Amino acid sequence: MSRLHMTTPRADGFRMPGAIEPKTGCWMIWPERTDEYPFGARPAQKAFARVASAIATSDPLTMCVSARQFKNARVMLPPHIRVIEMSNDDAWMRDVGPNFVVNDGSGEVRGVDWIFKSWGGIYSPYDWDDQIPRKVLDIEQLDRYRAPIVCEGGALQCDGEGTLITTRQCLLNPNRKVGNTDAQIEQALMDYLSVDKVIWLPRGCPFDTTDGHIDDLAVFARPGVVLLTWTEDSSDPQYEVSHEAFEILSRETDAQGRPFSIHKVTQPNPIEWTAEEAAEVDPVDGIAQRVAGERIAATYINYYIGNKAVFVPTYEDPNDSPGLAAIQACFPHHRVVGVPGCRDILLIGGSIGCITQPQYAGGKRV
Amino acid sequence: MSRLHMTTPRADGFRMPGAIEPKTGCWMIWPERTDEYPFGARPAQKAFARVASAIATSDPLTMCVSARQFKNARVMLPPHIRVIEMSNDDAWMRDVGPNFVVNDGSGEVRGVDWIFKSWGGIYSPYDWDDQIPRKVLDIEQLDRYRAPIVCEGGALQCDGEGTLITTRQCLLNPNRKVGNTDAQIEQALMDYLSVDKVIWLPRGCPFDTTDGHIDDLAVFARPGVVLLTWTEDSSDPQYEVSHEAFEILSRETDAQGRPFSIHKVTQPNPIEWTAEEAAEVDPVDGIAQRVAGERIAATYINYYIGNKAVFVPTYEDPNDSPGLAAIQACFPHHRVVGVPGCRDILLIGGSIGCITQPQYAGGKRV
Repeated sequence: MSRLHMTTPRADGFRMPGAIEPKTGCWMIWPERTDEYPFGARPAQKAFARVASAIATSDPLTMCVSARQFKNARVMLPPHIRVIEMSNDDAWMRDVGPNFVVNDGSGEVRGVDWIFKSWGGIYSPYDWDDQIPRKVLDIEQLDRYRAPIVCEGGALQCDGEGTLITTRQCLLNPNRKVGNTDAQIEQALMDYLSVDKVIWLPRGCPFDTTDGHIDDLAVFARPGVVLLTWTEDSSDPQYEVSHEAFEILSRETDAQGRPFSIHKVTQPNPIEWTAEEAAEVDPVDGIAQRVAGERIAATYINYYIGNKAVFVPTYEDPNDSPGLAAIQACFPHHRVVGVPGCRDILLIGGSIGCITQPQYAGGKRV
Repeated sequence: MSRLHMTTPRADGFRMPGAIEPKTGCWMIWPERTDEYPFGARPAQKAFARVASAIATSDPLTMCVSARQFKNARVMLPPHIRVIEMSNDDAWMRDVGPNFVVNDGSGEVRGVDWIFKSWGGIYSPYDWDDQIPRKVLDIEQLDRYRAPIVCEGGALQCDGEGTLITTRQCLLNPNRKVGNTDAQIEQALMDYLSVDKVIWLPRGCPFDTTDGHIDDLAVFARPGVVLLTWTEDSSDPQYEVSHEAFEILSRETDAQGRPFSIHKVTQPNPIEWTAEEAAEVDPVDGIAQRVAGERIAATYINYYIGNKAVFVPTYEDPNDSPGLAAIQACFPHHRVVGVPGCRDILLIGGSIGCITQPQYAGGKRV
């Protein structure tokens, strides 16, 4: 049974785990928007298939696919990937999927279903995406909380031990507040994730179309250990943002009172849309047109932490190897696996972290 | 993983269970065709919801629903029913769903995916329905066999001990043979259901639009025990068919060499479309129009055998009570539950058996 609870996860003893905790699987959505993705979305589909196949070596993977694309996805994905029909408006399971929360006492897992409004309303419609949490939880027969605030999973970095890092630019943006005060939003985050301390960075990465999701800027490797997208090029707009985040996090402590160990991961060299790519997106009224030279937020830390390995986007860039090495240094018990060709995911707005949703296993805290 | 096997269930040690064997759940499809079902399909939806709610007291129930109807179905069904988005062309899960087969040694369950061609092609398109077995098996992560013949589950009555009863009118109909000989079809049935003996009745019930599915005429209660739709009214076209089936089955033995114990279940009084109902179906080219006075095949034996109870359609007819009693007499270990208002399912072509697909549990034979 998948029941809707009118209480909060905190009241019922559930918490959002840290990303390193055990998972029963990973959820993704198959990309198909030809009005956002160039070349009929085919390069994006191939890149998603690479990511899914890589992750499936570590965690069971479920791909949600529209009716129209079901046959194509089923053929493009290996048979050990579960493919389920599910209507969608876009391909960002991190943002639209349920955030799974666990009860350390009973081992039960439930899902938090945030109000989804398409990253401040940049695309419409978004009704299908908003229904995805209830559909996923119904399939898995897990209970659900419908949270009273607008949020996307990419805006959240929890350590599983009481700390949340996020950005004001995103969650306190007027385009997401829907009548809530800042204090109400913070309280809802604390109640629905079971965190005791919210660290508000002022903003996320430039060139990120999500209004500064934290998961391109600063992410937990494990409690107390943060990876930070970095550049030493002071002419790059990323410079100021990364240095500002570093300063703030260096002075902060987590909910347990620990200072953060901060590891800088130098970003890839700037990645921009080409004229050919921009010309090969369906021109549709109401969607911002891509233009040649438009830069895309590109990082290595927008990764997926599986049970056995960490799957890191790579871009055929000289910074790929140092980036993988910097991440590997923070994961002594995981293989770090670079997934090639992630430029084709970036082009449409994110990377491996943005297209994956971990389903946590519950049970005793590790 | 849901793999496609190119072998046969028989070769791999799998068999189709008898309908009384243990189940892990029951699958249904939500009805919505306003070009087949009167009054915008609303009465049919209410009747399906009644059936689903009843069965869910015995077996976990999953309702597959099109994207367009998802929200409506989710509201009309209680929360303990699992609702999954799945495109469909119609609502007959018995006919289009996978037939689950079990391996008594390993306990593994797999699915047989017959070629589906819309009951001889009376409706089109039927592509969505033909994809349902692979989607169900992918969700459940069970392996699949794609059988080389056209078949619908409603054409099959297996006892789980080597016997199949079916009709020539249906499975040997030129509209289903697609180049196969009679012998090839019989061999495929034996190989994909693991049966040793096929009993071919010449025809099914009149007024049945499926070309005589066996599941309106003669069904197993358990091995050796058959329920037969009956009438003593020699002016009724059903009379000749029921008596013919009785004569044949009385002379036959099953695969184990046992004669059949045949129990006659008198059908309800004739049920016909009213003028108002016929007028309230969307008129669509290519689909036979219903007319006032058109009779519908109506039986009590088109039931669903759950783990704890048998769910029998009732029609607010004087024969309901004797029908329920006759069925109860054959099920000493199950409650027999009459589900009211099944005329609204009949109107669209079948009854409880036709809209349900049992998922067998596997494990040791009971």
